[in-house]
Amino acid sequence: MEPVKIGLLGLGTVGSGTVIVLTRNAGEIARRAGRGIEIAHAAAREYKRDAITGIEHIGRIGEDAFAVVDDPEVEIVVELIGGYSPAKELVLRAIANGKHVVTANKALIARHGNEIFAAARARGVMVGFEAAVAGGIPIIKALREGLAANHIEWIAGIINGTGNFILTEMRDKGRDFADVLKEAQARGYAEADPTFDVEGIDAAHKLTILASLAFGIPLQFERCFTEGISRIEAQDVAYAEQLGYRIKHLGIARRCPEGIELRVHPTLIPHRRLIANVDGVMNAVLVKGDAVGPTLYYGAGAGSLPTASSVVADLVDVVRALTTDPNNRVPHLAFQPDELADTPILPMDQVETAYYLRMMARDEPGVMARIASILGEQGISIEAIQQKEPGEGDTHVPLVMLTHRVREGQMNQAIARIEAQGSVQGAVMRIRMENLAG
Amino acid sequence: MEPVKIGLLGLGTVGSGTVIVLTRNAGEIARRAGRGIEIAHAAAREYKRDAITGIEHIGRIGEDAFAVVDDPEVEIVVELIGGYSPAKELVLRAIANGKHVVTANKALIARHGNEIFAAARARGVMVGFEAAVAGGIPIIKALREGLAANHIEWIAGIINGTGNFILTEMRDKGRDFADVLKEAQARGYAEADPTFDVEGIDAAHKLTILASLAFGIPLQFERCFTEGISRIEAQDVAYAEQLGYRIKHLGIARRCPEGIELRVHPTLIPHRRLIANVDGVMNAVLVKGDAVGPTLYYGAGAGSLPTASSVVADLVDVVRALTTDPNNRVPHLAFQPDELADTPILPMDQVETAYYLRMMARDEPGVMARIASILGEQGISIEAIQQKEPGEGDTHVPLVMLTHRVREGQMNQAIARIEAQGSVQGAVMRIRMENLAG
Repeated sequence: MEPVKIGLLGLGTVGSGTVIVLTRNAGEIARRAGRGIEIAHAAAREYKRDAITGIEHIGRIGEDAFAVVDDPEVEIVVELIGGYSPAKELVLRAIANGKHVVTANKALIARHGNEIFAAARARGVMVGFEAAVAGGIPIIKALREGLAANHIEWIAGIINGTGNFILTEMRDKGRDFADVLKEAQARGYAEADPTFDVEGIDAAHKLTILASLAFGIPLQFERCFTEGISRIEAQDVAYAEQLGYRIKHLGIARRCPEGIELRVHPTLIPHRRLIANVDGVMNAVLVKGDAVGPTLYYGAGAGSLPTASSVVADLVDVVRALTTDPNNRVPHLAFQPDELADTPILPMDQVETAYYLRMMARDEPGVMARIASILGEQGISIEAIQQKEPGEGDTHVPLVMLTHRVREGQMNQAIARIEAQGSVQGAVMRIRMENLAG
Repeated sequence: MEPVKIGLLGLGTVGSGTVIVLTRNAGEIARRAGRGIEIAHAAAREYKRDAITGIEHIGRIGEDAFAVVDDPEVEIVVELIGGYSPAKELVLRAIANGKHVVTANKALIARHGNEIFAAARARGVMVGFEAAVAGGIPIIKALREGLAANHIEWIAGIINGTGNFILTEMRDKGRDFADVLKEAQARGYAEADPTFDVEGIDAAHKLTILASLAFGIPLQFERCFTEGISRIEAQDVAYAEQLGYRIKHLGIARRCPEGIELRVHPTLIPHRRLIANVDGVMNAVLVKGDAVGPTLYYGAGAGSLPTASSVVADLVDVVRALTTDPNNRVPHLAFQPDELADTPILPMDQVETAYYLRMMARDEPGVMARIASILGEQGISIEAIQQKEPGEGDTHVPLVMLTHRVREGQMNQAIARIEAQGSVQGAVMRIRMENLAG
C-alpha cells in the first residue's frame, strides 16, 4: 500500500524529534500501522538541518505553513508550531481542506479546542492531541479509551516537569526557589521567562484537557484556578517532610456533588504515595475511577523524542482509522459531542481541602489560643500543630499547622482574621493538602 | 440507536463485576460509546444472584454457554469462564459465528492466542483481551497504540498481585514466606493451590502477551523462563534492603542483539525506582521505549471491578469499531499479522544479568579467596561483598555478594563449582538483579 503523506508545521524541538522518530522507526511503525508514513511537505522558518536525522527524507521544506495545509498531496497535518496564532488559523484551514490534524499544542486545545473539534466533526476529520498533555505518557488514550468503563472521580497530576524539577531540588538539597530556578534556566529546563511553567499556566492548559476527557464537559480553561510555586520556601519543604509529606505542584480535577473542581496549586501529599516519589522533570497522572480504583501513568512529560512519541502514536491512530466511518470514531473529548454535560466548575472558595498553614506567631502567652479559637469559629479543626524553637532574641516563632478538610471560603476568612488580629507577623502561608487515597 | 447486544459467559468474580459496571455506569458508557450495551444472554452454572447489582437487566440467564455463542441476537461474546476448555471451544465457535469476542483469559490467550487471532482475522472479527494482563491497568492499549512510535527495548512488570503482596509483607514485617502465604490464603488473595501465582505461571502468561505486543513476535508461552518466589527467605529480603534493593517478582522481556529474553523470577531492584515502591496487591508495568524513555503504568491487577473495568473498556472499543473496515483495525498483537518477526527467544543460559548471591561459607582462612577465584575464572566480577557475623559457635558465616552482569550460563558453572568445592554449606542462593535504569 502507498505510504500516507503528511505535512509538518515546525521543525523545532518536537518537530525535529518527530522527523527522527519517523525515520529511525519507519520499519516498525509501518509494521504496526499497515502503511508507511512519509513527510511530503514541511514548513519552518529556521531549523538546524544537521541536527535532524532523516531530514533528507522530507519531500519538500519551505517557509510557508499555509502552503503545507493547502498542499493537495498532504492527508494529515502535524502542527508543532505552538502558540495561538497562526496555529489556530492553520489547524482550522487544514480541517476545512478535509485534512486530519495531529497537534502537540496544549494552549491551542485548552483555549480553542471546542471550536476546533466542532469544525473537525463537521468536516469528518480527526484531531489527535496526545502530545498536548504529559509529553510521551499516553494519558489521553488511557482516559478516553482505557478507562471508558469508569465514572471518573478525580485526577491529580504532576504535569509540568520544570516545576517538579524545582520542587525536587528544593527538597533534596534544601535549596531556595530562586536559586534552583536559575539552575533550571541554565540547564534548559526552564524558559528565560518561566511564568508559564512556575505559575501553573502550562499545567492549567493540560488539566483543562484532562478534566474534559474525564468528566465529559466542554473545555473551560478560563475557569481553572491557578497558583504557582514561586512563593514556596525552603522551610515549607522541610516542615512538610518532617510531617511525612512532600510538596508537589499538582493539577487536580475532582467531581463533587455541586460541580467540578479544577485547580492547579502546590499541594502537600503523603510521602508514601507513589506519585509523591515522582521526581525531577518526570510527569505522572493519577486517575481514580469508580471501577478500576486508582491508576497511575508515569513518564517523560516533555522533550523532543518523548513528545514525538505521542505525535507519532497519534499519526498511527489516524492512519489506522483513515477508512472508518467518521460518525463512529473515538470522540475527541471521550464522550460523544452531543453528550457533553454542563456540570459547573466550582469557584475556588467552594472547594473543600485540607491545609498546611505556617505563620510567625508572637512569642507570648495566649497567642496560640487566639489563633485556635479563630479557626474553631470558622469551623476548621486542627489535625496537627508544631511550634518551632524561636531564634535567640526573636519575638516571633514559626507555627505550623495541618487542618482537616474545610471549604476554601472558610479558610480565607480565618486567615484574614488571624492576619488582622495582630498576633502574627506578615502573612499566613497556606498550602493545600490532599490525601489522594485510593 | 439500538443498544449493542452482548452475551456473557460466566458470572463469577469478573462476570459479576462486569454486570455491575455495565449497570451502574450505563449512562456514561453510552455517552462515550455512542450506543448502549445490553446483556442479552448470559450463561453460568452457579452464581450469587443477590450479590450482582443489575442482574435483573440481563435478558436471559441459562446454563448452556454454547447457547450464548450460538444466539443470533448476540453481537459480542464476553468470555469470563477462564481456563483452557471449554473456553477455547467457546471462543472459536463465537468467532466462527461471526461474533466479536472480549476475554479476560490470560492462560487462553498466552497458549492459544495465535490460533484464536488467526481465526478472528479470517472471519473479520475483533478479540479484545485488555483484562487478561494486569487487571484494570490499560497496558495492552498503551503498548499497542500509545507507544506505537517506539522501538520497545524492554518491559519489566509486577504482574501478579498475590506474589507482590507476599513480598511486601515479608519486607514490611520481616515475616517468612510460608507464614505470609497462609495469611494471603485466609484473606482470599491466594488460592488454596497457590502454584499458579507464587511459581510465576500466571505472570508468565501475562508476560508472554506483553512481549508479543512489544516486539511483534508470535505468542510463545512455552519458551518463557519461570522461577517462583517460594525459595526467597526473610534474610534475603533483609540483606537486599541493607544493600539498597527491594526484591520484586518481575516479568522481564528484553530485546538483545541475539534475541529476546522472556523470564519471570524474583529480582533485586534499586529501592529508589518507582516500581520498587509498588506494594501490596497492586501491579505495575515499566516499559522502556527508544523515543519515550521509561514509562510506568500502575493500578489494581486483579479483583472484580478493576478487571471488569478492562472488560468493559474493550466492549466500548469494539462498539466504537463495529462499522470499521476489518482490514484496517488495530491488529490484535500490535503489529500487522503478516508482519510478525521470528526473532528467537533466548535460552536462559544466554541471558545476561547481575546477581545477588548468598551462601553459608566455612569460617576459616582462604575460603573467601577460593570463592572469589572461581568467580573470577568464570568471568564474573564482584560489585559488593558482605560477610555477616557468625553466630556463637557457628562454623559457617553468611556471605552475601552482588556481581556485575554476566551470562547465566557462566553463573551456573560458577555456582556448581563453588558448591562442589566444599567451602560452603548447602546450596548457593542466587537472585537475579536488574538496574531498570531509564
